[in-house]
Amino acid sequence: MGPQHIGIGHPEVKDVLAIQRNTSAERHSFVIAEGFWATRLALRLEARIEKFFHAPELVHSTEVQACADELERAARDTYRVSEKTMKRMAQREGPDGLLAVVAMPRWSPDSIQLGESSLVVIADGIEKPGNLGTLLRTCDATRVDALVMVNRRTRMSHPKVFNGSKGMTLKVPHLEFAQVADVVEWLKERGFDVYLADTHDSVNYRSVDYSGRTAIVVGNERYGVSNAWYERGLRAVGIPMLGAVDSLNVSVSASVLLYEARARKDRW
Amino acid sequence: MGPQHIGIGHPEVKDVLAIQRNTSAERHSFVIAEGFWATRLALRLEARIEKFFHAPELVHSTEVQACADELERAARDTYRVSEKTMKRMAQREGPDGLLAVVAMPRWSPDSIQLGESSLVVIADGIEKPGNLGTLLRTCDATRVDALVMVNRRTRMSHPKVFNGSKGMTLKVPHLEFAQVADVVEWLKERGFDVYLADTHDSVNYRSVDYSGRTAIVVGNERYGVSNAWYERGLRAVGIPMLGAVDSLNVSVSASVLLYEARARKDRW
Repeated sequence: MGPQHIGIGHPEVKDVLAIQRNTSAERHSFVIAEGFWATRLALRLEARIEKFFHAPELVHSTEVQACADELERAARDTYRVSEKTMKRMAQREGPDGLLAVVAMPRWSPDSIQLGESSLVVIADGIEKPGNLGTLLRTCDATRVDALVMVNRRTRMSHPKVFNGSKGMTLKVPHLEFAQVADVVEWLKERGFDVYLADTHDSVNYRSVDYSGRTAIVVGNERYGVSNAWYERGLRAVGIPMLGAVDSLNVSVSASVLLYEARARKDRW
Repeated sequence: MGPQHIGIGHPEVKDVLAIQRNTSAERHSFVIAEGFWATRLALRLEARIEKFFHAPELVHSTEVQACADELERAARDTYRVSEKTMKRMAQREGPDGLLAVVAMPRWSPDSIQLGESSLVVIADGIEKPGNLGTLLRTCDATRVDALVMVNRRTRMSHPKVFNGSKGMTLKVPHLEFAQVADVVEWLKERGFDVYLADTHDSVNYRSVDYSGRTAIVVGNERYGVSNAWYERGLRAVGIPMLGAVDSLNVSVSASVLLYEARARKDRW
């Protein structure tokens, strides 16, 4: 007796479609991992695989088959679906027969592990999921201790965040606060030096002190860091703009700042 | 007697639609600037405005009207179109009545102005127009002397390149070569130190010499820098990857390298 065969009208399939379309009430709790690359990554990161949907007709390699076997062992529930059903469930072209519903890991404000020279980034109002994904990818590469979201305008479980981050939504610790005041309190209690990324009236990012705990705040694509930060007397650091544009892409500026901080902390 | 009124079936309108759809033979020679922000930028950069399409019904501010007047003076030809026609021509939601066909500026390999400590970036096989656009935006901000494309997989005139670059497609000097060998020759003749961005077997990007002429080569989103570069014995520089991912987004890694080079050249 193998896994249950289900069709396009089954509630479990409908649930996946609702998550994909962002209409599910549970859209913040789950990430859809599509295909070999993404599902294998979820296994390697030991993420919790809630449901595994398997379309054997679409599996064309022993490598993918081995991943399917592993998913079946790891998943709480496994379902068999037809090629046609899988093609409806998958957002990517040419699905390879594997799709998993993965639980989004959760961190609480008190569960983040911090050291003497911790590095965190605060994403204030980032709007484009592609930018948030790219930022998470850099967060992993620079060993950021947490990504903190405030004035959130896109969801962490968005497929573009997952893809852009190369799956690091499942690995980089992330938190969300409703208001800037709450983030500032969290940072102050923990002794962070806070730097607001802003090209106006700012100190060159290469001349500030990164020796203790460092928090870098980056803002919305159009409006930048919100006023609530400035009202608290926090300092702005700037990346020089030597041409005609007055700002960089937000994930680029965050990355330049995070690499400078990491290099200085680790004395490269 | 004002500008000619033309409708949806007019050849000039059809030409714009063909450029937008990437089916025009002239799609590499022109950029479509849509709306106040983009058309004003084209004017400020003194780009050549070939055609200006004006839908007066959609113009709702004196600022936009002033821009329309300036476009009419600057453009070789001006056409009046209806609201309905403009909505068909524009790719963006909610057009504001202005759309211009702008000539893509051209640079030749010998026309690029170089100094003793010039900085250039080579984009080898970049695929996504959003990444190329973001890279151009950083090129402007770091005062890169030229962006050189090889193994080109997206077109410089793509609307996503224009938008992602904040219009810097019209400002940052760019060249295209068919083969890596041609670029290497161009760089060698001009005495450039060439660094290939690659995280494997590479020297930390903070410990190389940026004092003379510097060329940074970044590769395709999936495959990286092509083998032809390595066959010429060129050096790889790497940005440390301290987590699970083995690379950064290509426009991010280029930006981290370009800022390091610029900061070291300008002694920040």
